[in-house]
Amino acid sequence: METVYVSLAEKSYSIDVDSGNLEKIGPTLASFDRVSKCIVLTDENVNRLGLSGRVAESIADAGIDVCVLTIAAGEQSKAIETAATLWEALLDEGTDRRSVLVAVGGGVIGDLGGFVAATYARGIRFFQVPTTLLAQVDSSVGGKVGIDLPTAKNMVGAFHQPLGVLIDTATLQTLSDDQYASGLGEVVKYGVSLDAELFEFLEANVEPLQKRDADVLRQIVSTCCRIKATIVAQDEFETTGLRALLNYGHTFGHAFESLSHFSLLHGLGVSIGSICAARLAEKLGMVDADFVARQLRLHRALGLPTDVPPEIDSAEVLHRMRQDKKSVAGKLRLVLPTRLGACAVADDILDAAVLDVLR
Amino acid sequence: METVYVSLAEKSYSIDVDSGNLEKIGPTLASFDRVSKCIVLTDENVNRLGLSGRVAESIADAGIDVCVLTIAAGEQSKAIETAATLWEALLDEGTDRRSVLVAVGGGVIGDLGGFVAATYARGIRFFQVPTTLLAQVDSSVGGKVGIDLPTAKNMVGAFHQPLGVLIDTATLQTLSDDQYASGLGEVVKYGVSLDAELFEFLEANVEPLQKRDADVLRQIVSTCCRIKATIVAQDEFETTGLRALLNYGHTFGHAFESLSHFSLLHGLGVSIGSICAARLAEKLGMVDADFVARQLRLHRALGLPTDVPPEIDSAEVLHRMRQDKKSVAGKLRLVLPTRLGACAVADDILDAAVLDVLR
Repeated sequence: METVYVSLAEKSYSIDVDSGNLEKIGPTLASFDRVSKCIVLTDENVNRLGLSGRVAESIADAGIDVCVLTIAAGEQSKAIETAATLWEALLDEGTDRRSVLVAVGGGVIGDLGGFVAATYARGIRFFQVPTTLLAQVDSSVGGKVGIDLPTAKNMVGAFHQPLGVLIDTATLQTLSDDQYASGLGEVVKYGVSLDAELFEFLEANVEPLQKRDADVLRQIVSTCCRIKATIVAQDEFETTGLRALLNYGHTFGHAFESLSHFSLLHGLGVSIGSICAARLAEKLGMVDADFVARQLRLHRALGLPTDVPPEIDSAEVLHRMRQDKKSVAGKLRLVLPTRLGACAVADDILDAAVLDVLR
Repeated sequence: METVYVSLAEKSYSIDVDSGNLEKIGPTLASFDRVSKCIVLTDENVNRLGLSGRVAESIADAGIDVCVLTIAAGEQSKAIETAATLWEALLDEGTDRRSVLVAVGGGVIGDLGGFVAATYARGIRFFQVPTTLLAQVDSSVGGKVGIDLPTAKNMVGAFHQPLGVLIDTATLQTLSDDQYASGLGEVVKYGVSLDAELFEFLEANVEPLQKRDADVLRQIVSTCCRIKATIVAQDEFETTGLRALLNYGHTFGHAFESLSHFSLLHGLGVSIGSICAARLAEKLGMVDADFVARQLRLHRALGLPTDVPPEIDSAEVLHRMRQDKKSVAGKLRLVLPTRLGACAVADDILDAAVLDVLR
């Protein structure tokens, strides 16, 4: 087992990464103070796979009152309407300030569940049990929670740190190829923009990654969590600018995702967005052509998309990118690579340069 | 001018109380760091009275880009649907992390505006300009923001402290008698449960209060803000139990309000609720009959309601009271008086005692 500690000013928590540790959830929750009840939030797919049932059973076995709330799978659920339904459901279940919401699923469940927990009764505790690669390496760590507006992803939300995170990499065997690739898109992002050693490890382990090898998965998941925890510990509320560095490829990626009406999975949008950002950096003289070529090679070896879908309109992408939360007064701010494993926020990017990369 | 300072762990702010100081809002906002834009949120009534227009003009005169968003007046607006509309409107207005939302109106505008500000882009700054007595003495101070669920008031929300609060007591001349009385209900609450000197001051100033005398209003508004600021500074996130003491009369009051479908104003519900709590305390031997009689006399002298409306069903009240955020595992916890100017949280109140008081 690997344990990653997230050390924050007000509270700290640990991320436990292992394979086959899902049934530790009950004893883990029982170790916290005064837990009156657990509400397991999950989606229909995760429920069908039996994962949320195993979590609920483990909690019940630990002597804690538990119920399961199941919502439809997909990004469409990360919406105001679902949050409203869940707030009502929590009220109906008699949820109080000693209850804990346990999010079992992918990023949608974690983000939505965290937002509902952050705002119900002005905040109840929550615990993350991410079951997709994307959620395990990214969204379950760091306390960003939220929902989408129809035209702007993650535009409504809060910072609400979990009590803890339990990651069972055995759940990754249940993912479709697309979902798995979406997680890999985010993993490669960490390598390119923040950790050259991880990038090289990925280059050296393409085959085990394709086979979802347990050892390699545990290593990359804990490495990604460690990178993210280090950054979050220094910039919990996104005030110093450091945390923005986690968003390599994301300003482009969010626009692609939202213009595809979320038929393009998040990590695949980030994958294409990372390539766009690399090309833009090359155009601005920040990296050379070899940098872009090496990133492209790894993306292709791992089966990750690299081209902007032809049906997506460049002007629309630019419009969406300007609504990004990093923007100030409508001016684009993008995270661009400076060398392998390093990146920086660039201001005042010209529209023409962005449009050029998109075409 | 009276200035009350709210000193919190992470940030502090000041509450400026005066008469005729509304036009100071522009220079005040201009004194904060990097304000890219102000969004004035108000309701149709406040807009019609010209108050939000004066605020917007003052902001524009201070050289800050400003727009005004106006919603329907009334508690019905403190709902998920209105929050959703406002999140979209902020996006359309190009609101970014350097924007400030300025809430001009009563408690609904402050609570709703604060919640929208707390959650838009994971939190933007907001400033309170309360224009009702209720909002000036209570909801604009302390950072509690939120919206209602159909059957549970303030059930969804956050802690989000304002940048500052500007109170112009001249705006109180615009209130209807009911709105003014609603504010007085909350003022009397401070006296009964937390400050015997204030209670005596109110007893001695019934006539000036009825005439809305400027000097007396400035004194009681700043006194109430000071009492609340002192408590909030010691229990910002409602974790030590101290902050609950601000809720004398509120568990009953919220139930009355919500069962009247908000035709009963908040402070009037609190007024009736305070009398219920006093009677319950008498029944439990915590205070004597003189205490209840003295409170009743002041309520009546100020024209405040004291009886539970006959159309309200006691069993329904009890059910709603159990959903209160102070409840744990469905058990009632109520703030009850111990002597004039002092109160405590009482646990394990028997249903029969509550029903007895309600009948």
